[in-house]
Amino acid sequence: MTTTKPPTWQTLAATKRTTNVQKMPKEWRLPTSLTSTFTSTSTQSVLSIPRTSNILSDRELELTEKYDATALVEMMSSGKVKSVDVVTAFCKRAAVAQQCVNCLTEIMFEEAIERAGVCDGFVEREGRGMGALHGLPISLKDSFNIKGTQATIGYITFLDHAPSPQNSNLVTLLQAAGAIIHCKTNLPQTMMAADTHNNLFGRTLNPHNLSLTAGGSSGGEAALLAMRGSVLGIATDIAGSCRIPALCCGLKSFKPSAGRVPFGGKTAPGRLGSPASIVPVIGPMGRSVRDAELVLSTVCTGKTWDIDESVLNVPWRSVEPVSRPLVFGLVRGHAKRPLHPPVARALHAAATKLKEAGHRIVLLDHLVPDLWDCAVLAWKYFLLDPRKTDRGFVDAAGEPLVPSIAKTSFRELDAWEPSLDGLFDLNVERWKVLKKYHDLVVENGLDAVLTVGYQGTAPPHDQYGVTLYTVLQNLLNYPSGMFPFLKANKELDAPFFKSDAAYEPPYNAEACEGLPAHIQVMGKPMQDEELMEILKVVEGIVAED
Amino acid sequence: MTTTKPPTWQTLAATKRTTNVQKMPKEWRLPTSLTSTFTSTSTQSVLSIPRTSNILSDRELELTEKYDATALVEMMSSGKVKSVDVVTAFCKRAAVAQQCVNCLTEIMFEEAIERAGVCDGFVEREGRGMGALHGLPISLKDSFNIKGTQATIGYITFLDHAPSPQNSNLVTLLQAAGAIIHCKTNLPQTMMAADTHNNLFGRTLNPHNLSLTAGGSSGGEAALLAMRGSVLGIATDIAGSCRIPALCCGLKSFKPSAGRVPFGGKTAPGRLGSPASIVPVIGPMGRSVRDAELVLSTVCTGKTWDIDESVLNVPWRSVEPVSRPLVFGLVRGHAKRPLHPPVARALHAAATKLKEAGHRIVLLDHLVPDLWDCAVLAWKYFLLDPRKTDRGFVDAAGEPLVPSIAKTSFRELDAWEPSLDGLFDLNVERWKVLKKYHDLVVENGLDAVLTVGYQGTAPPHDQYGVTLYTVLQNLLNYPSGMFPFLKANKELDAPFFKSDAAYEPPYNAEACEGLPAHIQVMGKPMQDEELMEILKVVEGIVAED
Repeated sequence: MTTTKPPTWQTLAATKRTTNVQKMPKEWRLPTSLTSTFTSTSTQSVLSIPRTSNILSDRELELTEKYDATALVEMMSSGKVKSVDVVTAFCKRAAVAQQCVNCLTEIMFEEAIERAGVCDGFVEREGRGMGALHGLPISLKDSFNIKGTQATIGYITFLDHAPSPQNSNLVTLLQAAGAIIHCKTNLPQTMMAADTHNNLFGRTLNPHNLSLTAGGSSGGEAALLAMRGSVLGIATDIAGSCRIPALCCGLKSFKPSAGRVPFGGKTAPGRLGSPASIVPVIGPMGRSVRDAELVLSTVCTGKTWDIDESVLNVPWRSVEPVSRPLVFGLVRGHAKRPLHPPVARALHAAATKLKEAGHRIVLLDHLVPDLWDCAVLAWKYFLLDPRKTDRGFVDAAGEPLVPSIAKTSFRELDAWEPSLDGLFDLNVERWKVLKKYHDLVVENGLDAVLTVGYQGTAPPHDQYGVTLYTVLQNLLNYPSGMFPFLKANKELDAPFFKSDAAYEPPYNAEACEGLPAHIQVMGKPMQDEELMEILKVVEGIVAED
Repeated sequence: MTTTKPPTWQTLAATKRTTNVQKMPKEWRLPTSLTSTFTSTSTQSVLSIPRTSNILSDRELELTEKYDATALVEMMSSGKVKSVDVVTAFCKRAAVAQQCVNCLTEIMFEEAIERAGVCDGFVEREGRGMGALHGLPISLKDSFNIKGTQATIGYITFLDHAPSPQNSNLVTLLQAAGAIIHCKTNLPQTMMAADTHNNLFGRTLNPHNLSLTAGGSSGGEAALLAMRGSVLGIATDIAGSCRIPALCCGLKSFKPSAGRVPFGGKTAPGRLGSPASIVPVIGPMGRSVRDAELVLSTVCTGKTWDIDESVLNVPWRSVEPVSRPLVFGLVRGHAKRPLHPPVARALHAAATKLKEAGHRIVLLDHLVPDLWDCAVLAWKYFLLDPRKTDRGFVDAAGEPLVPSIAKTSFRELDAWEPSLDGLFDLNVERWKVLKKYHDLVVENGLDAVLTVGYQGTAPPHDQYGVTLYTVLQNLLNYPSGMFPFLKANKELDAPFFKSDAAYEPPYNAEACEGLPAHIQVMGKPMQDEELMEILKVVEGIVAED
């Protein structure tokens, strides 16, 4: 009798990745001479590679660069543009993106192009589109299930799982509206890290500078979108996962209030049934506020509950555009993580522009509940599982923890043990924070709060640290939008440098030159619709020149 | 040095009750010869006492008997009727009710009549009402805080509490809409029992038959409303508390989806911060579906979050009246608690009438998740507090537990110990039930489910037992409406008697003769508005002849 040694996790991972490469047509592949330079220590930008690779035609470059999703859907629904052409263009570009920044987990180019043909046929026959997302290629974080495709979410041990027997509920809704899923995207081991890195698919790199993080957990999505290998992506967010990658890669994203977007039928990175007061939400990532609204208004209808018992079942409301001066609270950071000059300048410039446009700014710096304490409180909810199920998934395959996981949690919680008794107290503590923030918003007549999502621009790999500026909105369950705004510019940023500030991670004006800075705008709970209108105002005001 | 022996809990309770008696004008008091017959062992009905007592004028009898809240508000807002007259009439009648069934905890007659004068002055000056609840007397369960009034919720130890420094948020909203609170009503010790009984205020009796329970936990409210000492009451519900008293006393009530009605600022009977997946809700109790809608549409607005950070912040939607045949699921009970003949007949008659009116009935008896298991699961959530804070409140004053508390819980949970690990599993188990129920509703195209709220009519004191038929809607978080329908009639009920059924509590055709039977109609989560329209249809169809 002979026994075969089971394959190592390294072998298993390599096999999976090879399968993925084979799903990319040879003519869409970049030369090894080029791809060999795309390393996690290279500081090059790969944003121009799709243009210089000669894989996409001029028309394909135009289709992938010039329009947002709303415009593409209009063009395809009216028959002006074929979905096959749009989807093919984005598939090509996604293939290029994958070779540059390693952002994909599952590739469905062939199926997507086939489906695009069906969409085009529908328009020819019916003279209209199939739905609000007619013919639109959409990319999804790997945790979504798509019938017939794996959802390993980066765990080696999940390679054993059969292809998903059915769709995540959101996928069904998107497809029913005419959307076409062309790929799924990379995410961190356990999904609780700000670096998109796992032992199965490896690390996703930042297209602006390969030596930097793409952010996490929806970093594959952001890197793909920044490369314009997709025009609209679907991410998730429990501590900033749809906002952190957006700010790292220069995209817009929207984190809705909990329960609005159907979450059912996803692959979970940890234990089901958490009693935490913070629950993950699904949010769009892309190029325009109206695209975010297009997706949310499409999937949040009075009928959504019919296919997802877990959804809150609150249909998207139609609200009036903003027609009055708005009042914005302004929070300029926390002493433990002072804003790096590019981000401080972006925030300052945004506030100034808003004021110039007639809106009012109310400084809240010293009035808000301590942001660090809030983040520590939030993080406790993520550590509730006494069985540490997510670590079990890692250990099951003998794979090591990726370095960023330790970096993302709070050192003061290393010895913290969850308990049922303590959970009551956590909830009481959370309600106090909710009340304080609520009272500030109401007493100051705020429409939204202007702040940042991170202290800096995208940092080097594994240096992101704690998600101080994004987890607050999850703790409060306030919807929030992230905007890229301005770019690091050492001369313009210099006046915002504070010699006494302990920048963490370190601020390096040379290293971040040209990287996207950002702002974050948070609204009021369940007023996702009102926030969307406010974001349109902000979008108009902070539009880059 | 002399030491004074601290007063016994009996003395403390007696003092509080005496204070209450003194708030009732002498001319509103019934003779002792009469009140001495109002005992918990007497089987008499006291429903006619307000008419025979000569305390209310004919006009006052008319005002308290002939109209629902909506009609009264219309009359008062247009100046046809004075709020002073309406409020005075209901105060008188509440005083009579209190002397018959012991339903009140706090009496605010004087302040209410004074406030009514202000409302009348407003109409005279402005030619319109102050708001959607202009001049309307409203009664509230004792757990609501009203500035300057105690909220002891029946705990002797809470007598130490100063009068509430501020209103519950809902109270503020009701008052802002012009409502006038004339009294607060009795509830059970710990609020987790189906008998309204505590050592501070004593036991509330059922006006239909004093030897029967008024139900709980909002039993004071129901007894008062049945006596027409109030036209609209505000109750709470975590396992049936706004529906059980309604079915026991022959009233309508509505349990909304969780979070819709602002819950903040109430006095809690147990520990704050529970991580349970079932949360208490506030619901109206009264005479008409349109009254329930009036209250809910008034307090659930886009501005409600401004005064209550805990509200879900989903404004009441305006939906179209039902204009098509509806599909009702029908659940006819559980083998462990077979329906008593009067209730079985009411349910049968309601289903028959709905069918006759063109609606469709789908029998779900053997398809729904086991109701008993669901109730046990739900009850575990109520036992999560490792500190047993509610028992601590009881013990603090040395008062004994009232008998009904033991009767309301499940024997199989006597040795059950909550744990954080177990809470994850509870939540998973709950999601399975949610999914099963959801799928039944969707696959059968149901608009609502027709069922009962209890197996019988109001049982004798301390015999109600487990809340099998009401806690399901809390576990599922489905909105639900309770309707009185038909009255026990031994001849008509006889065909529904099953000789092999183990009726629990025992069925006694003689004892329940003439008592109100009922039906319950549950809707879909967050479709409170749609359910309200369905209830209007049901109301029209089951209206008593």
